[in-house]
Amino acid sequence: MDTTTHRHELGELTLSRITGGTGTSVVESLKDIAPDLAEWIIAFSYGDVMSRPGLDLRSRQFATVAALTAMGTAMPQLRVHLHGALNVGCKPSELVEVILQMAVFSGFPSAINALNVAREVFKDRGTTPGEKLR
Amino acid sequence: MDTTTHRHELGELTLSRITGGTGTSVVESLKDIAPDLAEWIIAFSYGDVMSRPGLDLRSRQFATVAALTAMGTAMPQLRVHLHGALNVGCKPSELVEVILQMAVFSGFPSAINALNVAREVFKDRGTTPGEKLR
Amino acid sequence: MDTTTHRHELGELTLSRITGGTGTSVVESLKDIAPDLAEWIIAFSYGDVMSRPGLDLRSRQFATVAALTAMGTAMPQLRVHLHGALNVGCKPSELVEVILQMAVFSGFPSAINALNVAREVFKDRGTTPGEKLR
Amino acid sequence: MDTTTHRHELGELTLSRITGGTGTSVVESLKDIAPDLAEWIIAFSYGDVMSRPGLDLRSRQFATVAALTAMGTAMPQLRVHLHGALNVGCKPSELVEVILQMAVFSGFPSAINALNVAREVFKDRGTTPGEKLR
Amino acid sequence: MDTTTHRHELGELTLSRITGGTGTSVVESLKDIAPDLAEWIIAFSYGDVMSRPGLDLRSRQFATVAALTAMGTAMPQLRVHLHGALNVGCKPSELVEVILQMAVFSGFPSAINALNVAREVFKDRGTTPGEKLR
Amino acid sequence: MDTTTHRHELGELTLSRITGGTGTSVVESLKDIAPDLAEWIIAFSYGDVMSRPGLDLRSRQFATVAALTAMGTAMPQLRVHLHGALNVGCKPSELVEVILQMAVFSGFPSAINALNVAREVFKDRGTTPGEKLR
Repeated sequence: MDTTTHRHELGELTLSRITGGTGTSVVESLKDIAPDLAEWIIAFSYGDVMSRPGLDLRSRQFATVAALTAMGTAMPQLRVHLHGALNVGCKPSELVEVILQMAVFSGFPSAINALNVAREVFKDRGTTPGEKLR
Repeated sequence: MDTTTHRHELGELTLSRITGGTGTSVVESLKDIAPDLAEWIIAFSYGDVMSRPGLDLRSRQFATVAALTAMGTAMPQLRVHLHGALNVGCKPSELVEVILQMAVFSGFPSAINALNVAREVFKDRGTTPGEKLR
Repeated sequence: MDTTTHRHELGELTLSRITGGTGTSVVESLKDIAPDLAEWIIAFSYGDVMSRPGLDLRSRQFATVAALTAMGTAMPQLRVHLHGALNVGCKPSELVEVILQMAVFSGFPSAINALNVAREVFKDRGTTPGEKLR
Repeated sequence: MDTTTHRHELGELTLSRITGGTGTSVVESLKDIAPDLAEWIIAFSYGDVMSRPGLDLRSRQFATVAALTAMGTAMPQLRVHLHGALNVGCKPSELVEVILQMAVFSGFPSAINALNVAREVFKDRGTTPGEKLR
Repeated sequence: MDTTTHRHELGELTLSRITGGTGTSVVESLKDIAPDLAEWIIAFSYGDVMSRPGLDLRSRQFATVAALTAMGTAMPQLRVHLHGALNVGCKPSELVEVILQMAVFSGFPSAINALNVAREVFKDRGTTPGEKLR
Repeated sequence: MDTTTHRHELGELTLSRITGGTGTSVVESLKDIAPDLAEWIIAFSYGDVMSRPGLDLRSRQFATVAALTAMGTAMPQLRVHLHGALNVGCKPSELVEVILQMAVFSGFPSAINALNVAREVFKDRGTTPGEKLR
């Protein structure tokens, strides 16, 4: 198996493991307008970057949720990665913690807006942050 | 012990545990111009938020490093929190992973600029990412 | 009355004075997913920060509207704070001035997008900027 | 013809040339709430800036599309300027290239979100990026 | 006096009133590389926008300081406008209030970084926030 | 030649063509702390993205300079890409035009800060924008 095939296959595996159907459908949706971007997401973002062994997937998803919350310009991606975080074993209450923490670093509006996405994701999954958070 | 004292003491404890001398000196430096901001950092940011039991400190620091890297407007704070991350047990190689991952979400410049801060932090601590990263 | 009660009561008072029903309903809406964030908004954002005597509430709302316009990532909060600004005595024409000024500092798109929110807020309140602006 | 008239007329000409009806209707929509902003868009943004002879309009639109994609806070304006880019002779496939390139500089989410706007613009115009992009 | 002369003269007056020598020297420094940008700052930013009668200069400077603090990408301009705010009668303690308030909206790092600029500006002017802030 | 070798070699070629020694030394400087990021810059950013045939290199550099100016968080990269733009045939006066145009989209501070970088780059190259710009 040459390296290109390897990157693609590894990326598909990690994409599927993290985002499940949600991520796959984002990638599919790009194929009409920018098939190479779809391929880069698989081979680069998931094959080269997210598949790296040096950090567990739960920590990777905490980092992604934090960054997308702080940026505030990527709500559709935040939704995908909250699903992704739940898929790799992050607990809803932990994701709420990551988002709340962003109130300190990027301000209360960024945390409030991200929680509104999280509420919908949790509802779609039939889950809740579970207990009073403190 | 009333709640105000509790918040302050809990905050001091967590601030000291995460940032050690670095964070304390930031807080001290604010006392001339905005003593109440210094107190909010202790009682709110560290007492109310960072001390919450629902997420371990390593994960909190991964989240903070990710967010500050993605924002790109808080290099002094990134430095403090890279120190903080090392203080609570994040490995240098794991912090490099978090920063590299941001190339996907906030672009290569954000990752490169954060790595340049990380290199200095690692040097100050006499540590390195240790091994070839992959 | 201990300090914690004081912060909460002061915060509720200022929240109610600035945002009226709008802000209260945002806070209420957070209680299912993050009750502590709801409490922080009251006790910290409004009790500790917005209640401080060193700056009048009109100036505080001009500052908030300016910042949220410039950031461009917090349209729901801009709406709440435009209402808040009107509640504490800012004139519609003054709020338009603050937003127009942001064309200089954060660019024309940020001003245009904020004006589109302001138009809706003014309409909801049955008010207008009133006169030709110059 | 005095300079003020000149700025306005030159601006109207360039606005019309770049954005056609779309830009004109944005300007019209501002006249109720901020007529002077509408005038600044014509006389300053299009008269003073976009009409300058030192750079061709295609390059100007590539620059605008790149900036609005990277900022991520100006989707309505991105839509207007994608139309504008097509109006001055940029090819759909070239606009996709500019957007894809932003994956490197401002991250994959910024590119994906901009492509979703581009897809709608291309559809409204009955055009496509035309060929497999590579 | 035709309108162009009027815009320029009005802009020079307001620029001088707000920023004094600091702003003038920024404008001067641009003349080698982009003389038209220098002119736009005078005629558009200060002549068209900042000179408008609908909002007092103190409120305008509160808005500008808030926005530049929240953006975090314009520290040299924040410095100029903190000077400008002091020039038009804002008190140091009021400027500290505006900056502290941004901790809520754009996060603690944005407030801390802006305070570090404010400290230098106050020092250059031989002033201080004067009293314990609360 | 397999695809991996091809991506790397193509990337090196384009990196060298655009950024010359400047870009190569950035890549080299990353090898101690994150050798894989260095490789991604070559194989992904320059091999996969910047080498694509669908857009000429001058247009690509206009887009990059526009985006980095608007973002305001990537001054070291703006410097590299201003050099890169000059290397692929953009004229200094054209780069000034792109930066000036950003005053409209991301605000005057973003344009002023970018011009200050451009002035240094032009000086390093012994060039100037050449003529009065209009």
